[in-house]
Amino acid sequence: MRLVVIGGVAAGLSAAARARRIDSSLEITVLERGELVSWGACGLPYFVAGHVRSLAQLVTYTPEYFARERKIDVRTRADVASIAHGRRQVTLASGERIPYDKLVIATGARVVRSIEGADRDHVFTLQTPEDGARLKQFLLERRPRRAAVIGAGYIGLEAAEVMRTHGAAVTIFDAQAEALGREDPNLTSTLAKHLETHRIELRCGTRVKSIGDLAVDIVVVAAGFQPNVELAVEAGVETGRSGAIRTTERMETNLSGVYAAGDCAECVHLVTGKPVWIPLGTTANKMGRVAGANAAGARERFAGVVGTSIVRICGLGVAFTGVSAAEARANGFDPASAKIVGRDRAGYFRGRPTTVELVADRRTRRLLGATILGELEVAGRVNVVAAALAARMTADDFAQLDLAYAPPFAPVWDPLLIAVQQLLKQL
Amino acid sequence: MRLVVIGGVAAGLSAAARARRIDSSLEITVLERGELVSWGACGLPYFVAGHVRSLAQLVTYTPEYFARERKIDVRTRADVASIAHGRRQVTLASGERIPYDKLVIATGARVVRSIEGADRDHVFTLQTPEDGARLKQFLLERRPRRAAVIGAGYIGLEAAEVMRTHGAAVTIFDAQAEALGREDPNLTSTLAKHLETHRIELRCGTRVKSIGDLAVDIVVVAAGFQPNVELAVEAGVETGRSGAIRTTERMETNLSGVYAAGDCAECVHLVTGKPVWIPLGTTANKMGRVAGANAAGARERFAGVVGTSIVRICGLGVAFTGVSAAEARANGFDPASAKIVGRDRAGYFRGRPTTVELVADRRTRRLLGATILGELEVAGRVNVVAAALAARMTADDFAQLDLAYAPPFAPVWDPLLIAVQQLLKQL
Repeated sequence: MRLVVIGGVAAGLSAAARARRIDSSLEITVLERGELVSWGACGLPYFVAGHVRSLAQLVTYTPEYFARERKIDVRTRADVASIAHGRRQVTLASGERIPYDKLVIATGARVVRSIEGADRDHVFTLQTPEDGARLKQFLLERRPRRAAVIGAGYIGLEAAEVMRTHGAAVTIFDAQAEALGREDPNLTSTLAKHLETHRIELRCGTRVKSIGDLAVDIVVVAAGFQPNVELAVEAGVETGRSGAIRTTERMETNLSGVYAAGDCAECVHLVTGKPVWIPLGTTANKMGRVAGANAAGARERFAGVVGTSIVRICGLGVAFTGVSAAEARANGFDPASAKIVGRDRAGYFRGRPTTVELVADRRTRRLLGATILGELEVAGRVNVVAAALAARMTADDFAQLDLAYAPPFAPVWDPLLIAVQQLLKQL
Repeated sequence: MRLVVIGGVAAGLSAAARARRIDSSLEITVLERGELVSWGACGLPYFVAGHVRSLAQLVTYTPEYFARERKIDVRTRADVASIAHGRRQVTLASGERIPYDKLVIATGARVVRSIEGADRDHVFTLQTPEDGARLKQFLLERRPRRAAVIGAGYIGLEAAEVMRTHGAAVTIFDAQAEALGREDPNLTSTLAKHLETHRIELRCGTRVKSIGDLAVDIVVVAAGFQPNVELAVEAGVETGRSGAIRTTERMETNLSGVYAAGDCAECVHLVTGKPVWIPLGTTANKMGRVAGANAAGARERFAGVVGTSIVRICGLGVAFTGVSAAEARANGFDPASAKIVGRDRAGYFRGRPTTVELVADRRTRRLLGATILGELEVAGRVNVVAAALAARMTADDFAQLDLAYAPPFAPVWDPLLIAVQQLLKQL
């Protein structure tokens, strides 16, 4: 039995490693188009900012490690040109043909630079280690004074902070009315105010048509993300309405024995029940594990996501999970919401303001989502809501939660519990 | 209608304030034995340590505030001597009689100093603001060099750290084999090692019979906690097997119209289904709210607790929720457990080791508890488990959780998810 995995980053390597654990006799080949494997894309902004000294620090494992410790053949600069599923074979750009019994497609996503002038020398993306190295070099050598970011997703926000740290005045443009891909006007306005205090301008609802229109020294394009599905589609793999590859709970595509995982695949949003495309490293790893396990003969499932996301931008933690009130309404719920500003720790323990907004459905009283902003304990609080959403908890049940309290960690009434008390009054 | 509340701290004032919100015409009287009301006992160690400058900072509300803003009559130095439920009347030590229609008993808990010599001048407890003031004065004036703490619960641990900060060599004694009232040998040994590096000796399984046996300059007694139930019991209120007052989910005692809440009352442990006495400020506030609401004619319930607790001791966050493996076994479960050491954040973001131990039941695969130790994100992680326990999640469901990831907050595989993968192998 031979397993071929296309893609050597989060999902692909998780799949390969998990398949090896399930079946020690499997022949496993991972084909990666780039020069490095197993690198953490989420660390790239921190490399450019200087927190991470070398790109090598972002690499968890090398091909040598996989060969030696896992008996997995990881090949770099192996660019797959086509998949012939009828013959169970992939063909590389070099012409080489590699047979498979089971295939995992983990081809990731990319920024499609559809903006005029996006090929100019001062225009960057921040997706690969090479991108990070180029951007850092440009910032250090050219010291740009005026910078623009296109796309107010978390990569765009992180890139903006990095360039601000390097001394540039930064403007972020997003074609959508709101930031972070979240239909949440409160979130966007709070974020805009916070960025303003750090001299970063956030301009949502502004589409940049041409790089030439921007009088800046550097541009980072962090918009126009699309799943890399062309290879799969040409081979007969179906995509869903999100544009990403549609799979079963077992991460299998419409082609038997062909799995998909990571940023190229969609999954179920457990709050709305609908398929979504939310490319994130954590989800990619989980999908990859399940794809690899099933490709190796086990029987595992990936339930889906609740849409949890977090970013730290100029000292502020910004997190959300589930759906916003507007998104809830668009998905057929009858949402009520409550927003409070509490303290992240006891007041006498230098507690700082933290904002919690909770959304629930009036008909079922089910909790639907949360947005949390603050300096400390932001990840923990959003994760409590993420667990509650996965368990389909009602707001009433949520109000009963037995959360940890000690002055260095929280106030005696946790902001989550204050928020849910306000929410209950709206239901 | 007249509501009388006995006790003016967490549970009592929560009850009074909530009753006022439900019924604006209710006559509400709160009787507090001490001089202050609405003070946060959890802040006392931080007052003694100097983080909190004055005791006033620990006081959230004054009697004047309650009179002015809530039309609640809060009386201090009002020591209730007896309750005559037949006549619906309480009698103060002064002889004054106060009638009631509904009564909330929130008499708290106390340290019973059963140790010989515990009345000596260098022996302290840390329960009331007066205790805190006395202890702080002694530490500043006498500068004790050798200190002992009796009781390795969270108050004992916090007191030990405070005295260490003041320069004393500290030994903590506990009659039980393990610390923090948790049957968890791993936890106790990790804690002992950590304390040792801070020159605090932890001696569990050592009962101190006489203060005279300790060659020390100062002793803090933080053991022998008991609920203050005598007043209630004399009035015919029943206690449970824990020794604390037994109530319904609505916080009503066996006497109709008499409610109990806070440190004098027991509640249901949602993992074991059994009544427990776990006196904590958070629980007291929640119980108080429900008792006050129901006393005022609403219909609310307090579901119970999952036993969540957290303390920070010499920089280490120590938290647990649910039951330990030993406690699970004693409660009829067939426990499996897994312990891992992960990182609290991305490695290149100065991530530090964090220990996560998870317990689940082999028969039902239900998650039963967790112990978490680390420097950062400890509260958040234990709270995720607390939510999962409240939802009666299986380990399988827990492994699917969509937790937040960004390098400043967590590693891409959260320690909770690494731990549950190990746990699944044991099930």
